[in-house]
Amino acid sequence: MTAVGTLVLLRHGESTWNAENLFTGWVDVPLSAKGREEVRRGGELIRDSGVLPDVVHTSLLRRAIDTANIALDVADRHWIPVRRDWRLNERHYGALQGKNKKQTLDRYGEEQFMLWRRSYDTPPPEIDPSDEYSQEDDPRYAGLGSEMPRTECLADVVARLLPYWESSIVPDLRAGRTVLLAAHGNSLRALVKHLDGVSEEDISGLNIPTGIPLRYDLDSALSPTNPGGTYLDPEAAATAAASVAQQGR
Amino acid sequence: MTAVGTLVLLRHGESTWNAENLFTGWVDVPLSAKGREEVRRGGELIRDSGVLPDVVHTSLLRRAIDTANIALDVADRHWIPVRRDWRLNERHYGALQGKNKKQTLDRYGEEQFMLWRRSYDTPPPEIDPSDEYSQEDDPRYAGLGSEMPRTECLADVVARLLPYWESSIVPDLRAGRTVLLAAHGNSLRALVKHLDGVSEEDISGLNIPTGIPLRYDLDSALSPTNPGGTYLDPEAAATAAASVAQQGR
Repeated sequence: MTAVGTLVLLRHGESTWNAENLFTGWVDVPLSAKGREEVRRGGELIRDSGVLPDVVHTSLLRRAIDTANIALDVADRHWIPVRRDWRLNERHYGALQGKNKKQTLDRYGEEQFMLWRRSYDTPPPEIDPSDEYSQEDDPRYAGLGSEMPRTECLADVVARLLPYWESSIVPDLRAGRTVLLAAHGNSLRALVKHLDGVSEEDISGLNIPTGIPLRYDLDSALSPTNPGGTYLDPEAAATAAASVAQQGR
Repeated sequence: MTAVGTLVLLRHGESTWNAENLFTGWVDVPLSAKGREEVRRGGELIRDSGVLPDVVHTSLLRRAIDTANIALDVADRHWIPVRRDWRLNERHYGALQGKNKKQTLDRYGEEQFMLWRRSYDTPPPEIDPSDEYSQEDDPRYAGLGSEMPRTECLADVVARLLPYWESSIVPDLRAGRTVLLAAHGNSLRALVKHLDGVSEEDISGLNIPTGIPLRYDLDSALSPTNPGGTYLDPEAAATAAASVAQQGR
């Protein structure tokens, strides 16, 4: 089958809250200095690979937006068209947003902690709309109406991501474009589940490292001709994936 | 008449070549540290004014793109839709691109120098396609074909800007949106000429300062209800405009 465009996934670099080991979700924190450096390196990998994006899609969160801006500037592709959508946002972490991961583990125990972090269909408790870390009155979500989440499990992320994939990303790919998707651990996990046909059980074990572009070559049925994708820096990806799995410990 | 959306013009902050007193045009140089600070201040003015952009339009040059990114991040509007087009680029400076302004003044004399800088319809000599500062093979302009300029006077900028104004910016304004336009001295001058009906003689004397947002409130005929616009920091604008007029001296 004829190949369509190329998809490049890029998980945002370390944020200030990653560094502080807090659950972030939809809280709009910036990249840390280390995170900015990580995505500069991601931009160099894109530039040196010659897999040059023709269009970029991002979430509405600044850690993904800045990741795209920094990496594209380094790759001299800062001028390409930009599309943004809340459906690419990180998983909404509900009442856990703003909470320390270690304290949450200590308080609720290993089983409950891992259920919230890694089960496919058990969301954390809903966030109170008056909570300081709620996005209830954030103008960027004013149009969402009843679709506005107050918590999400990974199954919820898959459900709200796929309509955007179909309506906005697939048309860019079918037009032959190389698409950069700058997003988050769980929105990228949701997409990889769809692309690679990963099971609900196995997807929780998949850790996409930050700042290392992951290339998918798709056939005309939008199936990867390189299942699992190809990291532009495979060695760094293997090292990083192992350490992500240890978060919260 | 019913007011339509609000237009906010923002000229990019000082670039590294502004600081070195070089003709820049379409050469894609970054903001200087001073320029980044200028546009952070621009973002604070936008944030504090409450005139919050719903959509941003930029040129394809990183000094305008970064100006938009920095100012919008400060104003917490980094998540709004982005549109980019070459028709918002700075005037193409032809064979003068990369040349020192002072040396050009000394070499060609006051009359020729001011004709190239400030006449309405006298472009500098065309740049040679093989010149190191030509954009002939730049992928971002690959689709332009015969519209690709090798030099421009202000009349040329007006001619290539207005189709984009009509086709892309006006629809955003008619939809009631607040539009941020992050661009350049001459593309903004071309638009102000159109908006305020400035004559070909007078437009050369109009200097838009860098980094200070200029708000236009438009009626349904797209005429300004505040002719000349309103700077979000009028005192800083007056001071800055006077110094821009002295460039190259």
